[in-house]
Amino acid sequence: MNQQYSSALLERAVEEFAKLPGIGRKTAMRLVLHTLRLDVDKVDNFCHALSTLRHDVNYCRVCHNISDDEVCQICSNPSRISSQICVVENIQDVMAIEQTQQYRGLYHVLGGVISPMDGVGPSQLEIASLVDRVEAGGVDEVILALSSTMEGDATNFYIYRKLMKMPEVRLTVLARGMSINDELQYTDEVTLGRSLVNRVPFTGK
Amino acid sequence: MNQQYSSALLERAVEEFAKLPGIGRKTAMRLVLHTLRLDVDKVDNFCHALSTLRHDVNYCRVCHNISDDEVCQICSNPSRISSQICVVENIQDVMAIEQTQQYRGLYHVLGGVISPMDGVGPSQLEIASLVDRVEAGGVDEVILALSSTMEGDATNFYIYRKLMKMPEVRLTVLARGMSINDELQYTDEVTLGRSLVNRVPFTGK
Repeated sequence: MNQQYSSALLERAVEEFAKLPGIGRKTAMRLVLHTLRLDVDKVDNFCHALSTLRHDVNYCRVCHNISDDEVCQICSNPSRISSQICVVENIQDVMAIEQTQQYRGLYHVLGGVISPMDGVGPSQLEIASLVDRVEAGGVDEVILALSSTMEGDATNFYIYRKLMKMPEVRLTVLARGMSINDELQYTDEVTLGRSLVNRVPFTGK
Repeated sequence: MNQQYSSALLERAVEEFAKLPGIGRKTAMRLVLHTLRLDVDKVDNFCHALSTLRHDVNYCRVCHNISDDEVCQICSNPSRISSQICVVENIQDVMAIEQTQQYRGLYHVLGGVISPMDGVGPSQLEIASLVDRVEAGGVDEVILALSSTMEGDATNFYIYRKLMKMPEVRLTVLARGMSINDELQYTDEVTLGRSLVNRVPFTGK
């Protein structure tokens, strides 16, 4: 036991907290001392919620989003537009798009992007299952909503190559350009250039 | 279930994390998604460490520092100077002083300071047990190492009133003055004033 801690239990709890990303030893100590002041059942609730999540977690077998059932609430919702599939990297992206309330189609969670530097190839991602879904029919549009990075672009291109044999399926990509409320002079030149090239008719709206 | 989350388990885990101090919903989500990627046994270790700490935590019956045994390692260490008692607010303060490696005496953890604003009176603190310890004899010096705040000063004064009937016990307080490496022009005027009043002979060290 480190001499600094007068309790091995305390030291272990601090070490476990400090393993979490973005949490250093000082924050870990603060969190542990906070839990010491909590009622026992509150700490039990915390541990139970975390443990249950990890043990009982499920992923939708259609879109691979996190789900409590075999098929997630979005995929099983009959009022969603099943002919649209939005391809995203991870479940946070699903949540971000859902929060915009601008999309009523379905999703497909890849689980990452192709990144040779990190040893992630197409076979580690849910690309084959995406192609299967599209080939099964009933899909009009696949929206590529990956990060605007080199890896995202490479993954977009890989999916494009896989789906180009089905020209009846429209392949779209999220619009890139100036953010809403951005000042022009502070927009980076690549984004500004893309905004110019992709300019759209002014509708007065 | 909030529509944002597609899993009730996920939502509950995020909510539990977000209850911790200094952790908002975004950080909570990041931490939960991190634990989802961890091995099951790592998550179990985390939960076990936290749960065991909360259930099995002990406080030293002499100094009230956190301890795995009935009497803590500091109080039961025969090479510590048992005639010195350093009075601190909480267990973090014990750790901070231990890390300086400048103190070989014992501690007494009050569990806070007198703060009428927060409804903390002397009876909620371990002041009576401190007086008992000193009255039991064998104590030469009580070092008051509380925060340099109004509440800390009030608590110092309260303890002074309780111990003044034992003039054989020396009552000292931590030195206040400029921090090491502080630049004089940026030192606040109260601290600088105190440093001047409490100036000590220059020994060349």
